[in-house]
Amino acid sequence: MEKSFLIILGYNSSLPFYNHHPTSQILYMKNNFFLIDCGEGTQTQLLKSKIKINKINNIFISHLHGDHYFGLISILSTYQLLRRNTLLTIYSPKGLKEIIKIHLKWSYSNINYPLRFVVLSSTKQKKIYENKNLKVYTLPLKHKIYTNGFIFKEKKNLKKLKIERIKKIKEINIKDYRSIQKGYSFIKKNGSIIPNKYLTYNRVKSLTYAFCSDTKYSPNIVKYLKKVDLLYHETTYLHKYEKLAYKRGHSTSVNAATIAKKSKSKKLIIGHFSNRFTNKSLFKKEAKKIFKNTIIPKTLKKYYI
Amino acid sequence: MEKSFLIILGYNSSLPFYNHHPTSQILYMKNNFFLIDCGEGTQTQLLKSKIKINKINNIFISHLHGDHYFGLISILSTYQLLRRNTLLTIYSPKGLKEIIKIHLKWSYSNINYPLRFVVLSSTKQKKIYENKNLKVYTLPLKHKIYTNGFIFKEKKNLKKLKIERIKKIKEINIKDYRSIQKGYSFIKKNGSIIPNKYLTYNRVKSLTYAFCSDTKYSPNIVKYLKKVDLLYHETTYLHKYEKLAYKRGHSTSVNAATIAKKSKSKKLIIGHFSNRFTNKSLFKKEAKKIFKNTIIPKTLKKYYI
Repeated sequence: MEKSFLIILGYNSSLPFYNHHPTSQILYMKNNFFLIDCGEGTQTQLLKSKIKINKINNIFISHLHGDHYFGLISILSTYQLLRRNTLLTIYSPKGLKEIIKIHLKWSYSNINYPLRFVVLSSTKQKKIYENKNLKVYTLPLKHKIYTNGFIFKEKKNLKKLKIERIKKIKEINIKDYRSIQKGYSFIKKNGSIIPNKYLTYNRVKSLTYAFCSDTKYSPNIVKYLKKVDLLYHETTYLHKYEKLAYKRGHSTSVNAATIAKKSKSKKLIIGHFSNRFTNKSLFKKEAKKIFKNTIIPKTLKKYYI
Repeated sequence: MEKSFLIILGYNSSLPFYNHHPTSQILYMKNNFFLIDCGEGTQTQLLKSKIKINKINNIFISHLHGDHYFGLISILSTYQLLRRNTLLTIYSPKGLKEIIKIHLKWSYSNINYPLRFVVLSSTKQKKIYENKNLKVYTLPLKHKIYTNGFIFKEKKNLKKLKIERIKKIKEINIKDYRSIQKGYSFIKKNGSIIPNKYLTYNRVKSLTYAFCSDTKYSPNIVKYLKKVDLLYHETTYLHKYEKLAYKRGHSTSVNAATIAKKSKSKKLIIGHFSNRFTNKSLFKKEAKKIFKNTIIPKTLKKYYI
């Protein structure tokens, strides 16, 4: 299984900008491809990323401003044209289902694959998805309208077995492997203990990715972000516009870096820059003074978590 | 005033295709910029075309399949962000207003510039726009859902004056210029006639552009297309799929070329090719056998009508 990675399909803010794309990301984690936000042109960006659109079964929409979801309708249409037949689940604030229904009504068309809408409405953190390898939680944000970020957490990895040692111990059966992988020591019939450490390699660390979509500076979220491996946080404004940013429900470069620092995140990716700033490197410069491991992403590049 | 021209922003069919864009065109005619259809990503293509989005005051939508209008919602949002204050008129089948309203409702946002929807519902040809220099008519098409093409007709051009000759005839006043430009001869007080031909250059021919969006083969439209200077006609399928095309409400290369030939059009641009055909030049090859002056457009190139 490949290590978890993030591909940023777009990180532009609401006004269109030459050769940039509004917010959308693909997170690969434990054989799952999650689509996070879906600005206009996302399906074209997906084509360029070479990630097969059919591998996506879960789409997370932070909020219903156009630069975060206008690309969704065409993706749902494309699935219909491609005769998708597997379940697609969309997590979003209320409204999306009504929007999709109106589009279908006036094009006299249907969606024949199973489509499930999970409506997010809580202002507290909720677990919204879980499978055997990972969990997804909301991250309540403070924007002009109801908005969530999302945290993707790998569950504890199974430990890799030192198979040659194990095979030498005749009492260990294949059915014992799972409990050893989980970290348990092996107890022989005579009561002696073979320590787990002797039978396995060190556990590979479980990774966490946090996506902080549009939000004003909100130190309340730090408690949810403790030591995340990769943090994406919006920085619509440079810091001299701090008051304006706050008023408009957005963050500055310094705000984002402060969240990264306080939460002891490992790495920070910034984006959603306002077009008024032509020199985007200033965002990085400001943020780096507070949080060194800050990057401005390259669209379509693979960032390992 | 520049000669009328067409820029094709995209001519792809419904499934996304690498480096291609769904249907959208800009027609410049007599100082007007008309946007015709508006597939996803149109505003990005407009940026690339370097045509200022604010110059567009009239948008014509042929039908409510996504590949012809999904890009509209973001353009309307962009106008709001750019604080547009002039009237925008959208000509489309019923439904678009409801779609836009639902999007605005759930993003808790407004459109503060004057926005007018002209609902097209007739299956007969109608004049839907006129100004002093041109007229726009619908072109009733036959597709899976209610669909119009559009015909843009320049009015008779004013004739250019031979000003040196005119200045030599003292009786001619500036107030007489307009009637001479319109083609009238000048009658002197003594009753003698100065023929218009002596006072003016030959009238520049008025141009006509016809846009035939999604439609099955429909020879009924030929009567509306008599001698158009430029005809765009969809060719979703190669001709061996003629029956399938007809059943699905689409045309083949031969269908389009036949319409161009029967209507004595001057030039034919084809597009809306199905992605199943990788070699697009086959469309041109088939069409050219029937109508020689057929081209596959280059996106963003200026085609003088």
